[in-house]
Amino acid sequence: MKIAVLPGDGIGPEIMAEARKVLAALDLPGVILWEGDVGGIGYRRHGQPLPPETLEMARAADAVLFGAVGDPACDGLERHLRPEQAILGLRTALGLFANLRPATMFPGLEDLSGLRPEIAREIDLLIVRELNGDVYFGEKAIRTLDDGRRQGFDFMSYAEDEVRRIAHVGFRAAQGRKGRLCSVDKANVLETSQLWRDVVIEVSAEYPDVELTHMYVDNAAMQLVRNPGQFDTVVTGNLFGDILSDQASMCVGSIGLLASASLGESQTEFGTKGLYEPIHGSAPDIAGTGKANPMAMILSAAMMLRHSFGREADATRIETAVAQALADGVKGADLGGGAGTVEIGDEVLARL
Amino acid sequence: MKIAVLPGDGIGPEIMAEARKVLAALDLPGVILWEGDVGGIGYRRHGQPLPPETLEMARAADAVLFGAVGDPACDGLERHLRPEQAILGLRTALGLFANLRPATMFPGLEDLSGLRPEIAREIDLLIVRELNGDVYFGEKAIRTLDDGRRQGFDFMSYAEDEVRRIAHVGFRAAQGRKGRLCSVDKANVLETSQLWRDVVIEVSAEYPDVELTHMYVDNAAMQLVRNPGQFDTVVTGNLFGDILSDQASMCVGSIGLLASASLGESQTEFGTKGLYEPIHGSAPDIAGTGKANPMAMILSAAMMLRHSFGREADATRIETAVAQALADGVKGADLGGGAGTVEIGDEVLARL
Ligand SMILES: CC(C)[C@H](C(=O)O)[C@@H](O)C(=O)O
Ligand SMILES: CC(C)[C@H](C(=O)O)[C@@H](O)C(=O)O
Repeated sequence: MKIAVLPGDGIGPEIMAEARKVLAALDLPGVILWEGDVGGIGYRRHGQPLPPETLEMARAADAVLFGAVGDPACDGLERHLRPEQAILGLRTALGLFANLRPATMFPGLEDLSGLRPEIAREIDLLIVRELNGDVYFGEKAIRTLDDGRRQGFDFMSYAEDEVRRIAHVGFRAAQGRKGRLCSVDKANVLETSQLWRDVVIEVSAEYPDVELTHMYVDNAAMQLVRNPGQFDTVVTGNLFGDILSDQASMCVGSIGLLASASLGESQTEFGTKGLYEPIHGSAPDIAGTGKANPMAMILSAAMMLRHSFGREADATRIETAVAQALADGVKGADLGGGAGTVEIGDEVLARL
Repeated sequence: MKIAVLPGDGIGPEIMAEARKVLAALDLPGVILWEGDVGGIGYRRHGQPLPPETLEMARAADAVLFGAVGDPACDGLERHLRPEQAILGLRTALGLFANLRPATMFPGLEDLSGLRPEIAREIDLLIVRELNGDVYFGEKAIRTLDDGRRQGFDFMSYAEDEVRRIAHVGFRAAQGRKGRLCSVDKANVLETSQLWRDVVIEVSAEYPDVELTHMYVDNAAMQLVRNPGQFDTVVTGNLFGDILSDQASMCVGSIGLLASASLGESQTEFGTKGLYEPIHGSAPDIAGTGKANPMAMILSAAMMLRHSFGREADATRIETAVAQALADGVKGADLGGGAGTVEIGDEVLARL
């Protein structure tokens, strides 16, 4: 079980230390942990946000545990040198095309959602976001037009096979949940979305047990506020998934608790190779203060054990310990509590 | 004062009738109302969602009062024949590049927002959405690649002058409000956004009295749930504006109450030529039942009087009458009340 540990920037190293503590306590057989630099720290030490040695390590590993990247000191750099390129680069280099972002209300935390408690309580959804295509990776530049004007452009596209493989992930995920899949697009305006919709409908023939619906992205953003309980599994493209999954995470009120898995087609001897990261960012404003909540990072490690190493029992052990700690009132500053990074790690550990 | 009245599909004609009643009651000098077909009804009667005679009428008018388009019976049609093309076509043909969408909590309606009342109550924002560019109007198609795969693509772009003119609208709007402008983009991924951000910063030099901030769209979708009270004026591109303005409207809980103005550079003898429409759609499910709430349509007429005809007093008269009716408990089904379309129109009329 080779794990590439990439703490990254800001609070990344602090929360990663707690996740490592929890993993160590599980006494997993034959675990090898490698540590590498990514993001702003990668740039500072190696001149690149995703140094070749880090990429090589990630390629060789069975799973990547990723902290967070983002460093205000890098703001002025050219795009390819900015910290975010590390995560974008890893997603494509490793072929991690399926991003799973569950958003579930943790009992007792309803008060932290921006939504009314009775609405927030109903949220139990999984967003399956495509991660290797869309307007993220098409040709893009700022160019000067013939008439001298500057123009910024980005080419948005999906090919049918790209849609097909993420659609399968969506349908299979729905099968393991309540059997409902909502595909989100903007087919009334975008041809990329029209193809997306056509292909999702084609694929649906193979999943007669899943109920498929379609929703425009503007309506989806509305429905996530009005009645998020209507969603079970949502499948959508890279850009819409970026927006809706962040919105959904705030609807459950606890961005410091949400983990995500990015999976591809590559199988290791234990399961599916993947990258696991909290959905929150590097929070440079609280880096070094010991206030960051490591729970999302710890829960990312649990997702890793489940998806990449087939260790469902260990994953559940971690998740139960986190839920228990929360139920016992162990709350970080993000949840209105006073527990610090190390303290939260210790409390989870004590409940393993 | 020449007004092109385009009721459109679904509930469009019903709510438009109430708006016309209110306009008639104001006894405006020299009003000429023309009525034309758009959307599904345009297609059915003239073979096109935006028939040439309707477009000509809209061009000749000082303002366009637009109901709603959208007709499930047209779902299978080719893209250029679908009802939505009517509104997209009018926006570009008339050069209406600036969409103003105010979202404000109506007092007493806090309970209808998906958000907690104390959060929803703080909402008082204006979204300025660019309406003539972005991925909406670039080259787009479904094509077959050399290797035989189908690919859907859409070209996203903004040229500097397109950004500059909408930035000016945003800054001027902020000047008339609390002096804060938040520009929303995805500059960490999109070059279109990078240019957007650069140009907005350039333009900001002309508005030293406006405080400019930048936010990524995924974060904006989150902040609209967590703390929407932080926003005053938001300026953003066509696609992000579509998503965020619908989300914001649900945050204030009353999509049946929100109006919008789409403005260009063309001036009439009275003010700025514009198109005014409720932000809700054609609601085919309740069309013909007499249950549609005409308030957003009536408030759109008020926006028209303000922006296109310089009749601030009349606009305020209408807005006050609507607010009064609401305060008196006149509520449509969308607000949990029992008042029907005509009844609501009459109640507003009675309070003019
Ligand atoms: C950092 C950024 C490039 C990234 C994205 O847009 O995918 C982030 O927002 C995310 O969702 O992981
Ligand atoms: C109908 C559709 C094309 C339109 C848009 O996306 O602009 C609508 O959602 C809107 O916001 O007016």
